[in-house]
Amino acid sequence: MGQVEKGRIAFMEKKTYVLLENYMLSCMDDSAHDSGHIYRVLYNALEIARTEKDVDYDVLIAACLLHDIGRKEQFENPALCHAKVGSEKAYGFLVEHGFEADWAGKVRDCIRTHRYRQSDLPQSLEGRILFDADKLDVTGALGIARTLIYKGIVSEPLYSLLPDGTVSTGEGDSSPSFFQEYKYKLENVYESFYTVRAVQIAKERQHTAVEFYECLYREVSRLYLDGREELDKYIYEDFS
Amino acid sequence: MGQVEKGRIAFMEKKTYVLLENYMLSCMDDSAHDSGHIYRVLYNALEIARTEKDVDYDVLIAACLLHDIGRKEQFENPALCHAKVGSEKAYGFLVEHGFEADWAGKVRDCIRTHRYRQSDLPQSLEGRILFDADKLDVTGALGIARTLIYKGIVSEPLYSLLPDGTVSTGEGDSSPSFFQEYKYKLENVYESFYTVRAVQIAKERQHTAVEFYECLYREVSRLYLDGREELDKYIYEDFS
Repeated sequence: MGQVEKGRIAFMEKKTYVLLENYMLSCMDDSAHDSGHIYRVLYNALEIARTEKDVDYDVLIAACLLHDIGRKEQFENPALCHAKVGSEKAYGFLVEHGFEADWAGKVRDCIRTHRYRQSDLPQSLEGRILFDADKLDVTGALGIARTLIYKGIVSEPLYSLLPDGTVSTGEGDSSPSFFQEYKYKLENVYESFYTVRAVQIAKERQHTAVEFYECLYREVSRLYLDGREELDKYIYEDFS
Repeated sequence: MGQVEKGRIAFMEKKTYVLLENYMLSCMDDSAHDSGHIYRVLYNALEIARTEKDVDYDVLIAACLLHDIGRKEQFENPALCHAKVGSEKAYGFLVEHGFEADWAGKVRDCIRTHRYRQSDLPQSLEGRILFDADKLDVTGALGIARTLIYKGIVSEPLYSLLPDGTVSTGEGDSSPSFFQEYKYKLENVYESFYTVRAVQIAKERQHTAVEFYECLYREVSRLYLDGREELDKYIYEDFS
């Protein structure tokens, strides 16, 4: 149901797309993982799929649209994994709306395995394309921008100061900040793709992200170094 | 009170600095205008002051530390101007803590006139240095990063879509987004400085900001153009 075979490729009916899109929109409510991210992941996935064989577009499009519908649950309770919660929500929604359990199960598996911080890896082609498409939105200027917006939402700072008062690069930081997230995830995401096309797109974007981080670090670290030294000249202690 | 003359330059006593710093910290509570911004403005101001003559460091340091203490009031009621509210809060605090009304008035004037979106322009040298030091934190990678964090706090998106479904550059947008703020403020801040040193620092940083905006726009606009075209191939309408 909701799919048609043309050769070996499954297509999606318009009313199914609209049903899934509206359900996705009803589940979104923060601006870093807002609906813009969902469409970008979908468009990334379609770009990757062009270079792969025998892609089930019906499963892929459904999985892209619904991959982050568990975000709200994880945001409210960080102990939950949005990939697991979202995969079960999606499966329940699809079966409830009359889609075959087998097909809904394929969509569920893609969603369950799309997360970067986990050991449950994608097994299907569509699952790997979704994984890569989602990770592409963490690369380049988009990855920087989305991470900064998220830091605003969760009230975390740009950087942490080391005990000597200088600015930390983020490497090995224990307290959360943009620099910490850059070093933990953004800097390393370029090595984590399954598909050749995703690696290509990521490499094209990498330079902007690296350049931005390095400039930002240079701007703030120099300010603190020079500024604190200069400040000392104009503050005196009165021991009289 | 709280100042000493060495030649023509006023310095600040340590206990005054700590008093003002603690009051500032008690007034901060969002991560884009968090205390990091205050220290960066202070350090920018000291860097600019090195190239100016007869700077009253006592007034300048006090004004830098207290310039954003009205942020919370503006955040809770956007009809209020944080520069006006903050200048009166600062004056009240200083007079209440035994500082001379004349000196507190100088600090108040600097704070009142530090805002970008206003017609009440800084008249004193210290007011102009504070204005420039604050605007420098909107330049370069720092300006991009702080604006994105703020968009997260106020739940505004990266970009808006035009009626034809393509991504807007932000130019002339009526709805708020990062691109809209970039075009309205970030792109133009480089022309708004009073001091030679601030112009120099801003120009050094400008390239990173321009490059970042252009890359981000390229990444998203291309995605939407190609992605929507590709999607159309896999969605069909069943008129049976």
